[in-house]
Amino acid sequence: MESDNSRPKVALVIGAGDATGGAIAARFAREGYIACVVRRSAEKLEPLVNRIREEGGQAYGYGSDARKEEDVVALIERVEAEHGPIEAMVFNIGANVPCSILEETARKYFKIWEMACLSAFLNGREVAKRMVERGRGTILFTGATASLRGSANFAAFSGAKHALRALAQSMARELGPRNIHVAHVIVDGAIDTEFIRTTFPERYALKEQDGILNPEHIAENYWYLHQQPRDAWTFELDLRPYMERW
Amino acid sequence: MESDNSRPKVALVIGAGDATGGAIAARFAREGYIACVVRRSAEKLEPLVNRIREEGGQAYGYGSDARKEEDVVALIERVEAEHGPIEAMVFNIGANVPCSILEETARKYFKIWEMACLSAFLNGREVAKRMVERGRGTILFTGATASLRGSANFAAFSGAKHALRALAQSMARELGPRNIHVAHVIVDGAIDTEFIRTTFPERYALKEQDGILNPEHIAENYWYLHQQPRDAWTFELDLRPYMERW
Amino acid sequence: MESDNSRPKVALVIGAGDATGGAIAARFAREGYIACVVRRSAEKLEPLVNRIREEGGQAYGYGSDARKEEDVVALIERVEAEHGPIEAMVFNIGANVPCSILEETARKYFKIWEMACLSAFLNGREVAKRMVERGRGTILFTGATASLRGSANFAAFSGAKHALRALAQSMARELGPRNIHVAHVIVDGAIDTEFIRTTFPERYALKEQDGILNPEHIAENYWYLHQQPRDAWTFELDLRPYMERW
Amino acid sequence: MESDNSRPKVALVIGAGDATGGAIAARFAREGYIACVVRRSAEKLEPLVNRIREEGGQAYGYGSDARKEEDVVALIERVEAEHGPIEAMVFNIGANVPCSILEETARKYFKIWEMACLSAFLNGREVAKRMVERGRGTILFTGATASLRGSANFAAFSGAKHALRALAQSMARELGPRNIHVAHVIVDGAIDTEFIRTTFPERYALKEQDGILNPEHIAENYWYLHQQPRDAWTFELDLRPYMERW
Repeated sequence: MESDNSRPKVALVIGAGDATGGAIAARFAREGYIACVVRRSAEKLEPLVNRIREEGGQAYGYGSDARKEEDVVALIERVEAEHGPIEAMVFNIGANVPCSILEETARKYFKIWEMACLSAFLNGREVAKRMVERGRGTILFTGATASLRGSANFAAFSGAKHALRALAQSMARELGPRNIHVAHVIVDGAIDTEFIRTTFPERYALKEQDGILNPEHIAENYWYLHQQPRDAWTFELDLRPYMERW
Repeated sequence: MESDNSRPKVALVIGAGDATGGAIAARFAREGYIACVVRRSAEKLEPLVNRIREEGGQAYGYGSDARKEEDVVALIERVEAEHGPIEAMVFNIGANVPCSILEETARKYFKIWEMACLSAFLNGREVAKRMVERGRGTILFTGATASLRGSANFAAFSGAKHALRALAQSMARELGPRNIHVAHVIVDGAIDTEFIRTTFPERYALKEQDGILNPEHIAENYWYLHQQPRDAWTFELDLRPYMERW
Repeated sequence: MESDNSRPKVALVIGAGDATGGAIAARFAREGYIACVVRRSAEKLEPLVNRIREEGGQAYGYGSDARKEEDVVALIERVEAEHGPIEAMVFNIGANVPCSILEETARKYFKIWEMACLSAFLNGREVAKRMVERGRGTILFTGATASLRGSANFAAFSGAKHALRALAQSMARELGPRNIHVAHVIVDGAIDTEFIRTTFPERYALKEQDGILNPEHIAENYWYLHQQPRDAWTFELDLRPYMERW
Repeated sequence: MESDNSRPKVALVIGAGDATGGAIAARFAREGYIACVVRRSAEKLEPLVNRIREEGGQAYGYGSDARKEEDVVALIERVEAEHGPIEAMVFNIGANVPCSILEETARKYFKIWEMACLSAFLNGREVAKRMVERGRGTILFTGATASLRGSANFAAFSGAKHALRALAQSMARELGPRNIHVAHVIVDGAIDTEFIRTTFPERYALKEQDGILNPEHIAENYWYLHQQPRDAWTFELDLRPYMERW
């Protein structure tokens, strides 16, 4: 996507509550984009917004429930009204809670899909509508190992992630010819987050050897995808530490 | 699955409203299974039940909403109480309604997933719980081209079908070692149904040359999968007319 | 493939040196097919030929180097001249010799491809030419886990098996509309063979629990594929023991 | 791969006879790499070498038959002796000649595999041996649509490309943990080359709308892959024009 410097450019990150979403928002802000970051609680976004601003970037936090159609419609409307056209949207909500199929509840099965897939559909559609009118834009989805493989005890998560990948593919095939770049990033490995640090300390120890993914490095790939010229767009790439078994 | 002739054997077909589900039920009935067939309206199942009975088989129709957890729990309980252990369950509900991503509604996106995927989870889980206790059983899911590919205008359907395949894979990996055979059948082509006959008459005309799938032939594969000895189980097979482009 | 009982029917098994090829040949012979079995040394085929004959079937052994174009051309010519049209061909040559990429030799890399892939091309093409003229026939290829995955130390074998799968797919797409059923069977697990018994005794011990594949059961699937009516052909199915991790 | 500026760095491009290989070599040269470019005839490399030098880069042409083990061993030895350690190798030889399976010759089937796959194995292995000793390096392979799909009339090419992908995967899994980044780029679409211009003029006309791939843009992705830090390596990415049907 070549840039048009005469107008403000917005990068919208849905699911900016984790290290990855935050790093992506900061990466786009560093390029002059207005980073609009979203999670359920706007309050919790303050540290991220402040961090981006301290680095000299522009950032705004929005509290919005990505699973509610009205909320999403209102959010996209408001973001564009307040800051300008969304040039890039990143969908980065995960929801991995492993469970035996024998004990999985309908409620949890639904909630995981709602968070990791329905939200992506709602936000993707709303943003796509506007991008199609302008004939430009980038939509990026975060996938996982479970996007390609239904492992034991991962029925709910892999279901949602498979569905998300189907959404990304379907959108890429429909919207590519309309100049919207839709791509899907498969993150295959543990990420350097507080969650991994406290829950899987042995895994986290691999950080010393670069054995877990650095969110900044993940973010670089999102920026790279957004920059690709349209004669050579990537739909899908995977990311994993050099030492990961796969 | 080797059979034990000393007890009644039940084959449960969820989604027996179309030609494929009906043919599968009839196929199992022809082998001595008690065919318990399910769709939302029990009344509409009468022709199928009668047809199976006229052929000398046993069949019972159940009206049940496969998307409602309480209904599913009650259904499985009742079927086993009335007829005996479910040896084979076939999940055969589809829900294909193509639509541009730009016009897809949250309601329809959800409904397609609810019908084609959540129902499969609910029924699969309830039946699996009982099969695991008995250490035997077969669970078969009906897939489609959209299980493997997210085409333009198929975001909702391919999402649901991708998620269904992930469910099947995850269940196969968890339950295989517990002697439950979980398999996924990819039907890639038009089926000889009233719907195709009236909606796609040119396609239907290929029937003369065997260019559309005969439901009886599809059914044969479900029976075949159920019969496989456990040292050589198939997880996935595809079915398409010889002349189909793919 | 419906059968025409007024003429002799030949089933040709290339790579009948192992338990699987032998079981497939015997399976077709049991249905009245003339089993023509091929390996490099005709002499070594005698036990198999005798076994099939003792069961009341017809069988003939052919020594032929499946990697040599002239040999293959001559073989197919001779088999059809001596016994009639080949209705089914099964290609069943493997060549798995794991090796680090750092130590793999060009000679071995080539030989594995030559055996597991070039042979398949040569035999497949020669048989296809005749089947296309008659407008009927079945061609079945034996795949493996390595058909879908390039594991560490399996560069040569997975390369040959990936190429074999591409051959099968390409032939299926070209020849399907000409009424030739081409299919690919992915065998994922240890097979009950002398090789496994002596080399991997711990693995072999799983036989007690049906943890390794019975060649008779594999063979059943080849017969099944050959029997499928052409409105519902399978291109690919996998086979693995219920307890296999995958 | 982080760089060590105190020593010369070599980028070796096998298959620099087309626009893509040339653009990749030039891209690395622009970053200070010594571009060693290889095709059968060294003479034909002169324009490329001159072009890189005129841009201020370092480039050397080597005539070598990538299919001959002795030639490859000698080439790698010589390149490192003359210019220093190979930091990045790019394998970029294609060999697409469509043909009906019924008319394909053994000679051509072999030659396509030899060029597009055996060469990759030989060069990959020789370079990997040295990279493993140094504990660093990048190896990149050029794939195609046929890497994932065996289309009608593409048995030979898709076989070679499937095998190449298996090689890349196997090497990535074995060598990743030893700090060698192996990746596979799937180019899905027509490239802006003399060949496309003269053979498919209608296709070429899409250049006006960015409908064919610019070799410079392809090259950018190879450079990008080489630059990825090792905690977040990509094994595979695809590249296609925004308007390409897939």
